[in-house]
Amino acid sequence: MLTFYYPTNTCALASHVALEEAGAAYETRWIDFGAAEQTKPEYLKINRKGRVPALATERGVLTETPAILAYIAQTHPEARLAPLDDPFAFAELQSFMSYLCSTVHVAHDPAAHEAMKKKVRQSVGACFDLIERKMLRGPWVMGDAYAVANPYLFTIARWMEVDSASLIRSR
Amino acid sequence: MLTFYYPTNTCALASHVALEEAGAAYETRWIDFGAAEQTKPEYLKINRKGRVPALATERGVLTETPAILAYIAQTHPEARLAPLDDPFAFAELQSFMSYLCSTVHVAHDPAAHEAMKKKVRQSVGACFDLIERKMLRGPWVMGDAYAVANPYLFTIARWMEVDSASLIRSR
Repeated sequence: MLTFYYPTNTCALASHVALEEAGAAYETRWIDFGAAEQTKPEYLKINRKGRVPALATERGVLTETPAILAYIAQTHPEARLAPLDDPFAFAELQSFMSYLCSTVHVAHDPAAHEAMKKKVRQSVGACFDLIERKMLRGPWVMGDAYAVANPYLFTIARWMEVDSASLIRSR
Repeated sequence: MLTFYYPTNTCALASHVALEEAGAAYETRWIDFGAAEQTKPEYLKINRKGRVPALATERGVLTETPAILAYIAQTHPEARLAPLDDPFAFAELQSFMSYLCSTVHVAHDPAAHEAMKKKVRQSVGACFDLIERKMLRGPWVMGDAYAVANPYLFTIARWMEVDSASLIRSR
């Protein structure tokens, strides 16, 4: 049985629709944004990033919409929610979802920009603090098995040197 | 044979590393950011988003780092670049890469924030204009086969109503 954690009117809706379309066996747990429930210790035990949605499975909790969507599709092949046997078509699907989450979603949210612009240095630092303390499993990002997340993390982590250099120059 | 389009010192490096690690047969085409080559008609034929990296395959061009990485992993299973036979582990990998592309990468780039904050409404409009005119295949997002990108797009598109309402209120 899956448990889906979601607030109303967020990108969680996408995963909720997919769960229904997959005919998945799941229960829901509503998260009250008005009461900032996503920042409370009880929810942070579910998702340490304090973000929604989250999908609790027997193996653990999944977060980030594109990943949850791909998981629902892959575990319910009979629902045909993704081209599972065609790597190129699957990559095109992923590319579309990636564009939505990294560009469209971000472009939508001026409040997030304003907040992030003011504290972009702290924000990047906080991201890498979370990665280093909570997300890295070791020896590789995902644990014993090497995966493509490693060069991706390596690439973005390198930028910290540039950020650091520009901080020094601006003093 | 794959063709990899990349500039120096961007997130394209992640895919470049993965191509090497996969032992992929590919050639490279360097994109000159200094000359804004990514905005020129010749490159826009390769990637209409004018962004990098892009990976040209026999089936077509792939963009967006998480999608390119998953594709490289799936088409080179012998390189073991992703847990291809384990949907949960694959989803965890995707979740990590999604966090990198939607949050960490964005948090890194104050210039992008500043530019986007100033014109967030135009930016969202430009995103959906591109989606509607160039990316939607019909009848579903990816063409004839339904896929999980559909509820994702539906969800984010709904926000345009909210944006529109707040524009009217702010007049």
